[in-house]
Amino acid sequence: MAKTNPGRFFEDYSIGQVIDHAVPRTISGGERALYHALYPARHALYSSDEFARASGLPASPIDDLAAFHVVFGKTVPDVSLNAVANLGYAEGRWLLPVYAGDTLRSSSEVIGLKQNSNGKSGVVYVRTKGTNQRGETVMDYVRWVMVRKNDLDAPAPETVVPSLKPALAVEDLTVPQGLDFSGYDFTLAGEPHRWGDYEIGETIDHVDGVTIEEAEHMIATRLWQNTAKVHFDATFRTGGQRLIYGGHIISMARTLSFNGLANAQIIVGLNAGAHANPCFSGDTVKAWSEVLDKAETAAPGVGAIRLRLVATKGGAPFALKGDDGKYLPEVLLDLDYWALMPL
Amino acid sequence: MAKTNPGRFFEDYSIGQVIDHAVPRTISGGERALYHALYPARHALYSSDEFARASGLPASPIDDLAAFHVVFGKTVPDVSLNAVANLGYAEGRWLLPVYAGDTLRSSSEVIGLKQNSNGKSGVVYVRTKGTNQRGETVMDYVRWVMVRKNDLDAPAPETVVPSLKPALAVEDLTVPQGLDFSGYDFTLAGEPHRWGDYEIGETIDHVDGVTIEEAEHMIATRLWQNTAKVHFDATFRTGGQRLIYGGHIISMARTLSFNGLANAQIIVGLNAGAHANPCFSGDTVKAWSEVLDKAETAAPGVGAIRLRLVATKGGAPFALKGDDGKYLPEVLLDLDYWALMPL
Amino acid sequence: MAKTNPGRFFEDYSIGQVIDHAVPRTISGGERALYHALYPARHALYSSDEFARASGLPASPIDDLAAFHVVFGKTVPDVSLNAVANLGYAEGRWLLPVYAGDTLRSSSEVIGLKQNSNGKSGVVYVRTKGTNQRGETVMDYVRWVMVRKNDLDAPAPETVVPSLKPALAVEDLTVPQGLDFSGYDFTLAGEPHRWGDYEIGETIDHVDGVTIEEAEHMIATRLWQNTAKVHFDATFRTGGQRLIYGGHIISMARTLSFNGLANAQIIVGLNAGAHANPCFSGDTVKAWSEVLDKAETAAPGVGAIRLRLVATKGGAPFALKGDDGKYLPEVLLDLDYWALMPL
Repeated sequence: MAKTNPGRFFEDYSIGQVIDHAVPRTISGGERALYHALYPARHALYSSDEFARASGLPASPIDDLAAFHVVFGKTVPDVSLNAVANLGYAEGRWLLPVYAGDTLRSSSEVIGLKQNSNGKSGVVYVRTKGTNQRGETVMDYVRWVMVRKNDLDAPAPETVVPSLKPALAVEDLTVPQGLDFSGYDFTLAGEPHRWGDYEIGETIDHVDGVTIEEAEHMIATRLWQNTAKVHFDATFRTGGQRLIYGGHIISMARTLSFNGLANAQIIVGLNAGAHANPCFSGDTVKAWSEVLDKAETAAPGVGAIRLRLVATKGGAPFALKGDDGKYLPEVLLDLDYWALMPL
Repeated sequence: MAKTNPGRFFEDYSIGQVIDHAVPRTISGGERALYHALYPARHALYSSDEFARASGLPASPIDDLAAFHVVFGKTVPDVSLNAVANLGYAEGRWLLPVYAGDTLRSSSEVIGLKQNSNGKSGVVYVRTKGTNQRGETVMDYVRWVMVRKNDLDAPAPETVVPSLKPALAVEDLTVPQGLDFSGYDFTLAGEPHRWGDYEIGETIDHVDGVTIEEAEHMIATRLWQNTAKVHFDATFRTGGQRLIYGGHIISMARTLSFNGLANAQIIVGLNAGAHANPCFSGDTVKAWSEVLDKAETAAPGVGAIRLRLVATKGGAPFALKGDDGKYLPEVLLDLDYWALMPL
Repeated sequence: MAKTNPGRFFEDYSIGQVIDHAVPRTISGGERALYHALYPARHALYSSDEFARASGLPASPIDDLAAFHVVFGKTVPDVSLNAVANLGYAEGRWLLPVYAGDTLRSSSEVIGLKQNSNGKSGVVYVRTKGTNQRGETVMDYVRWVMVRKNDLDAPAPETVVPSLKPALAVEDLTVPQGLDFSGYDFTLAGEPHRWGDYEIGETIDHVDGVTIEEAEHMIATRLWQNTAKVHFDATFRTGGQRLIYGGHIISMARTLSFNGLANAQIIVGLNAGAHANPCFSGDTVKAWSEVLDKAETAAPGVGAIRLRLVATKGGAPFALKGDDGKYLPEVLLDLDYWALMPL
C-alpha cells in the first residue's frame, strides 16, 4: 500500500465523524512579517503592539485572516484533496486573538452529507475549529465542498443538510476580551471615518490594485501549509499557470480594502463566501465593498459592521452578477463578513 | 464623498504644517529575516547579536536602511501619492538603532514650498522624523518631491526654499551610544580593510549583480507599507511592468557594496540622493562606490567614511554622467552617505 | 589592489589550513517562518513548539536543513567562489539542534588536495563545522569541490585524499539529548507509518511537485547568505536563467518527502550527495525515496532510517541512472541521509 496520503473520498465521510488534522503550528513574528510582506496589510491593530495596547489588547495579534489560513491549511489533506469544488462558508466566528508564541491545531466534524444525483460525487459539510495550546477554540467555521467518490458502488449515505444561518447576528459575534475603542486614534489608524459615517447600502471602491505573481501566492499558500497540488505544480494545467488558493484572494481583497475601510479593524464573523472565478498569475486584483448591516456591541466604543467584500480582476466596480444571476467572469470573490469598528 | 485617500495636492500643503503619518509598526525578527532574504545583506553587525554585543550594542539592530524604509513608507499616502517625481534627499541622520520589539511611527513637517512656473505643480520639502515607542527620534531626513496641483486656480504659496547642507559634517553625525570598534573582528566581518585603508577619491567596483524580479520588489515594498500604486499594479504601464520603489534600489546597492566595503558597518548620515533612472524587473543591478571624505569620531576605534554609492543596470563601472552633465541612462541611483568603520 | 573578494584558487589551499568564515548569524522566528514559506515544510517537530516539547526537546528547533544552509552559506566566499563543480558530501552529522536566538558561525579545515592531470584545476576537500554562541559544534560535514588554479605555474601540492566513510554507521549518529518518541502522536504528525512499517529496499513516490520560480530560490539562497553570483545574476547565462543553488533542491525534495515520510522527523546524518543535473526556473521538482538501511537507537522510541532521496524534474519515479551508469538527465539530486523516526 502506498504510504502517501490519498485523501478522503465521498464515501469515507460519515455524519458525526471528527477528524483531527495534522501538523500543529507555532506562530512567531516571522509569520506576521510575512503576512505584511505578501499583502498590503495596514490595519494598525495588527501592525503595532502599541496601537493594540491602546485598544485594550495585550499585544498585536496576528491578522484574523492569517489565523484563518493556518486553521484552514491543516484541513486540506483531510477534506479537500479530492475536492472538485469549494462550495461555501458559513457561521465563521473568531473567538480569541492569536498571538506570537501560540500554537494552533485544527479539527473538523462532519455535519452534512449529500450525494449528487449523478452518483459520482457528493457534498461534504464540515465544521472546523482551530484551538490553541491551552485547548481554547480560537475560531470555528462551516465549509462545504464537493468531493469525488472513489468507489462508485459505495452506497449513498442518508442525506443530511445542516441548517446554517444565512448570516450571523450581532449576538453571535465575540468581541475580544478587553477591547476598548473609546480612545481610538484615527490619525494613527489612517482614516477619519468612524462606524457612524458608514450607511447601509453604501459602496466603496478601494481603488488600489495588485498584479498577482506566482512566487508570491506560492509563498503565502505554503506558509499556511496548504498542500493542494494545483497551487504549486504548473504541469497540472496547460499554459503552466497554477490555480491560486482562494484564501490568497480573500487576504488580498481584505487588505486592499484598507483604503476606505481602514477602521474596520477586526474580523469577527464570516457569514458567507464564494470563490466566483479562478485567479491566475498576471491578473490584477482590485476590490470593492458594500455595507450590508450595522450593529452596536457591548464593548466600549466598538461597533459592528457587516460588509460584502468583492474581489475582481477587471471590470467596473460594483458589478457583481449578470442578468442570468451568475457572477460576472471578472468577479473572483464575494465575501460576507462582520468587522469591529470604532463608534 | 469617497472614503478612499485621494492624497494631498500641492495646494494642500503649507509651511509649518505637521503631518502625523498613519500605521505605526512593531518590528520583530521577521522583518530582519525578510531584509536578509530580499537583499544580499551581510554586514555582520546586523546579522549577529554576538557581533553587535562585541561592538558595544545590546543586540543586533535592524538594518539602518530597513529602519529608513519603515519610516519612509508611512509618508507615502500623505506626501507622495500625487507626486510626479521624487527630487532629492538631504540631512538624513540615524540617531538611535532600532531593535526587535520597537514600534516606529513617522511625522513630517513642511519646510519648503515652491510652485512651478507652469502653475500645474510645485515642489514640497518635508522634514520627516521616525520615532519609537518612547517618543525618541530614531532618524530624520529632508525629502523634496514634485506634486501636482488639483485646483489649478489655487493661489501660489509664498516661495520658501529651505537652506539645506550639501553634506552633513562629521559633527552632525550621531554615533550609537556605546559603540566600540576597538576589539573589532575583521575575520568575522568578512574583509581586512579598515578605515585607514581607504583613500579619498578611491573607487570600488562591487562586482556582484542581482537581476530584479517583480515578486521580490513587491514583497519588500509592501513590507515597508509603501502603498504607491505604480509599484504593484501592472496595468499602469504598457508592458505590464511595475515601477520599482527607489528604496529597493538603495538597499540592493548598499548590500551589494558589502563586497569591498564589508566594514562600512553602520549608516549614520544621508547627504544626498538621486534616483537617476527608473528600474524595472529584468534589470540586473550592480553597484560601485567612491570615497568622498573621511573623518575621525570620538567613539573608540570608530572612523567615519563618506561614500558615493552608485547603482547601475549595465554599462561600465565608474561612469556617472554624460558630457551634457546628465546621468547616463544606465545609472539608477546616486547616493551620498556617511558610514561608520573600524579604524 | 581591489578590495573585493577574489575568492581562493586551488594553489591557495594547503593541508591542515583552517579558514574561519565570515558573517555570523543569529536565528529568529523569522528564519523559521521563511523556511516554511519557501518549502512545503510540514514535519511537526519543526512546526510546533508543543510537538517538540512532547518529544523531549525544549522548543521547536529550526529545520535541520536550514541549519545546514546557514553553515554552508558562510563557506561559499572562501571555498566555492572559483569552484568549477561541487563534487560531493560525506560524513555530515547534526550534533545539536539550533533554536531561535542561537548565533551560528562556520569554519573549515582543508583535509584533502588533488591537482587534476590537466594542471588547470584541482579537488579541495574541506571538513566544515558550524558552531553556536557557546562554541558548541552544531553540525559538521565534509565537502569536496573542483577549484580552478589562477597561477598555472604554481606547483602541484602533495596529493592527499582523505579516507571518508561511504556511509555513517548508526553509532556515528547523535540523537538530540532528551529525544523521546515513546509518546509520539502519529495523528498530529500526519501519517500512521512508524519505523517498523518501512522495509529496506522499499521505494516511495512522494507524488507532489513544485514548479520553481526565480524569486523564490533567490530569496532562499540569500537568506543563507550564499553569495555565489550564478544564483542571482541572469547575465551569466544565455536565456537569462539563474543556476539554482543545489541546497534549494535538497530542501525542496526533503520537504516534498513529507508525503510518505512524515515521521522521518529529524535528519542526523548526511552520507553522500550528488547534484546530478542543474535546475532552472520553470522546472517542476518531484521526489522519490528508497529505504537503504534501518537501525535502532538507544533513545526511547527512536529508530534510525537511512534513506536515498532523489529529486527529479520529470521522468518516471525510481529511475536514476542509464545503462551507461550515468544519472539520467531529469535527475537533479541523489542524496543519502539518516533520519530519526518513531519505532
